[in-house]
Amino acid sequence: MTLTRSLFTGLALLSSALLGIAHANDDSPGLTMMGTTPSVPKNIVIMIGDGMGPAYTSAYRYYKNNPDTEEIEQTVFDRLLVGSASTYPAKISGYVTDSAAAATALATGIKSYNGAVSVDIHKRPITTIMEQAKKRGLATGIAVTSQINHATPAAFLTHNESRRNYDEIAKSLLNTDTDVMLGGGKRYFPAKLIQQFEAKGYQYLSDFSQLETASSPKVIGLFADVQLPWAINERGAHKLSKMTSKALELLSKNQDGFVLLVEGSLIDWAGHNNDIVTAMAEMDEFANAIEVVEQYARQHNDTLMLVTADHNTGGLSIGAEGEYIWKTDIINGVSTSPDVIATRALKYDDWQTKVSDALGFKLSQNEETQLSLARMQGVEVMTTAIKNLIDTRSFTGWTTGGHTGVDVQIFASGPASTLFSGFQDNTDIANKLMSLLPKEAKVVNQVKQSSTIDKRVEVNDIEVNEPVVDTPTLNN
Amino acid sequence: MTLTRSLFTGLALLSSALLGIAHANDDSPGLTMMGTTPSVPKNIVIMIGDGMGPAYTSAYRYYKNNPDTEEIEQTVFDRLLVGSASTYPAKISGYVTDSAAAATALATGIKSYNGAVSVDIHKRPITTIMEQAKKRGLATGIAVTSQINHATPAAFLTHNESRRNYDEIAKSLLNTDTDVMLGGGKRYFPAKLIQQFEAKGYQYLSDFSQLETASSPKVIGLFADVQLPWAINERGAHKLSKMTSKALELLSKNQDGFVLLVEGSLIDWAGHNNDIVTAMAEMDEFANAIEVVEQYARQHNDTLMLVTADHNTGGLSIGAEGEYIWKTDIINGVSTSPDVIATRALKYDDWQTKVSDALGFKLSQNEETQLSLARMQGVEVMTTAIKNLIDTRSFTGWTTGGHTGVDVQIFASGPASTLFSGFQDNTDIANKLMSLLPKEAKVVNQVKQSSTIDKRVEVNDIEVNEPVVDTPTLNN
Ligand SMILES: [Zn+2]
Ligand SMILES: [Zn+2]
Repeated sequence: MTLTRSLFTGLALLSSALLGIAHANDDSPGLTMMGTTPSVPKNIVIMIGDGMGPAYTSAYRYYKNNPDTEEIEQTVFDRLLVGSASTYPAKISGYVTDSAAAATALATGIKSYNGAVSVDIHKRPITTIMEQAKKRGLATGIAVTSQINHATPAAFLTHNESRRNYDEIAKSLLNTDTDVMLGGGKRYFPAKLIQQFEAKGYQYLSDFSQLETASSPKVIGLFADVQLPWAINERGAHKLSKMTSKALELLSKNQDGFVLLVEGSLIDWAGHNNDIVTAMAEMDEFANAIEVVEQYARQHNDTLMLVTADHNTGGLSIGAEGEYIWKTDIINGVSTSPDVIATRALKYDDWQTKVSDALGFKLSQNEETQLSLARMQGVEVMTTAIKNLIDTRSFTGWTTGGHTGVDVQIFASGPASTLFSGFQDNTDIANKLMSLLPKEAKVVNQVKQSSTIDKRVEVNDIEVNEPVVDTPTLNN
Repeated sequence: MTLTRSLFTGLALLSSALLGIAHANDDSPGLTMMGTTPSVPKNIVIMIGDGMGPAYTSAYRYYKNNPDTEEIEQTVFDRLLVGSASTYPAKISGYVTDSAAAATALATGIKSYNGAVSVDIHKRPITTIMEQAKKRGLATGIAVTSQINHATPAAFLTHNESRRNYDEIAKSLLNTDTDVMLGGGKRYFPAKLIQQFEAKGYQYLSDFSQLETASSPKVIGLFADVQLPWAINERGAHKLSKMTSKALELLSKNQDGFVLLVEGSLIDWAGHNNDIVTAMAEMDEFANAIEVVEQYARQHNDTLMLVTADHNTGGLSIGAEGEYIWKTDIINGVSTSPDVIATRALKYDDWQTKVSDALGFKLSQNEETQLSLARMQGVEVMTTAIKNLIDTRSFTGWTTGGHTGVDVQIFASGPASTLFSGFQDNTDIANKLMSLLPKEAKVVNQVKQSSTIDKRVEVNDIEVNEPVVDTPTLNN
């Protein structure tokens, strides 16, 4: 692990040395102003489509395709693809990762056990890229559609031996000095905790309508009890895109740059549910958020954007049951999520019309009989029956309600984006990103402030910007 | 289509113009001798893992992992990954391709309907890269584990409105002037047809033992009635690797270079069967053949190798049924293909021991009961039961006996391999490869000889090495 890490750190340093270009946030503002892309970014935006394996991005292309044109239009993923990453967790957890171990790898460069929130296999905290960024004077933020204390954002911001310790994780966010936190999770942040955030200078947003006018450099916004609503049930709301846009605006106030994590968290949740229509709508909102960042990066060419997935979910396949068909018209025709259709079906006597209207196609006699039987068994069975009906009609396949071990894709643009070309491990992504942070020396005061964290972090407290020749002496 | 094609042709020309380096097989032998990699290849080796979607290459890494080491070893695929490709066929066939349409796209740069063998949607023949290579004086060859008249090799070599016309396709190979054809398919080549090949100067190899000493520049070798035996049932035989090695040796005799197609055909067949142990053994032999080509390319730095898949098969997933587990010890422990295990089980009274020995694990009481019931229903049901047992024990998932629409990966090394970085369509791969062929002017005689083919080819007879400014006047 150390060797790989040193290697990539060395490579990044070497390439920046060869090009003779300083960090964008060192004293060379001319570069950006001249329109030349710097070799090392001032800002890093990490975007994770949770569970977004390669079948999701391929499926999304066909889902978005305009059937009236001869060509199949490229998506933002097609435009930005540069490489792939393996996702396996620490050996103790086998080959298939959960979101916590994957986020730990992406945030720290160290693999751990499934369930670990940026602690190593011995449950010792390991330094995250967000902590390193803070030490170096950068602003940090997250914008996610899950609760903000969920596995992925948690592993970027804090440490816990288990992702399930939601209350502990929520409380621990108070001491991370994260500048912007936007997402769901009200349930885990009681009034007293919110007051503590406010005492630390955070502006608290309890309603999405407050987001637009928020202007404090430190913000915590919780817009749902747990996760945000499915995008498919709030068409046009573009909540992830708006949170992303606001986070970029607020973090930009820091002259020294920022690191922002954006997560399309619910792609994974829809994948666990084997729910293709909800998954595609979540993909669409995540793609939209990527375009928001692309737009920002066009105006700020010192911004690296790196998009990837933590793992694949559900074993989704485009085509199923021996047929060489995937019917996107069926998927595009469904107007709300299957659970909402099921709930409505249970309420009304003329449920057939309601269901048929929501699905966008007329039920066959056989389909109506199946749904009728399911309806008698309650909303969960009815939801499953509706999802099965959509899968059968559209030829969508699934193998699991859990995750799978296929490699995920990497999409990138901006300074140093070529570092991520080709194949790499998910820990390599983190090590490369960390190697792009500026040197620590600049922010002496903040290093002193975070000395309590330093004591806890024994395992991986490498100074990744040290010359590569020094790294063999490190003891991890 | 024309636009995309022109664009890539233009890009390839532009990059070669900017670098100011001539084709390797133009009069600049110094480049190769000096050890500098030329910018344009003399030789092109196209390797297709039929059905080898991204889950196969990821799975192969874990299948090959040495459990006694802490690290997970990289595979040849990891070393060579550069990009991805979409695989959808012509609009008329939807989003999920078959092998014929995919091979047509990869061989001609034009999408067609499922079943098409290098004919367009109007069933008109379209020029293949192999035909272009021939026109330009290059040698051509194929080495495959299917019958040599199967969809993929057929689309590179000939034209037919349907892949199912095996006899027609076999006969048509006679007029392709292909130098080396190695694989299976005796059934489709009666003695009279073989005599015609011999009359044209081909050496005919009817047995695999003849391969090693074959030295004629024109060879047709048929080593099985239809496809070659499963690699798992001939451990150490390395037939694809040996055919690849011989093809490279024979084609190298042509001073002007060659184009070779190598196909790991049976990865797809095992995928259709949802047979993980057989699929992984086929992957292993394909990987081994890639390493043979890698070795050749190390000694001949004017050789471009491009490895990809035509599509994904089976909807394979690493992990299934909600579990975050993939047990490669189960898969590695099985000694022969499930159909062989089933056949043996039906023959013996003490079938439990035979099956258990072949599987490498002791059957549970419940498993034995299930197999016992299956055994009474014949060899096919027994084969399926054994595959299900392996899937359940190893947590392997499948969604279909057909193909799926996920993008496939691209692996490449050698001159111009960077052309294939990032995302592209499968037709782009063909257009880029064709743009790398030398100019036609060199081989005036052969152009005259192939004038009959020229008449048939109306749709796509672009001279891809024309300057890009000329292409808008072309009428396709
Ligand atoms: Zn998940
Ligand atoms: Zn197939």
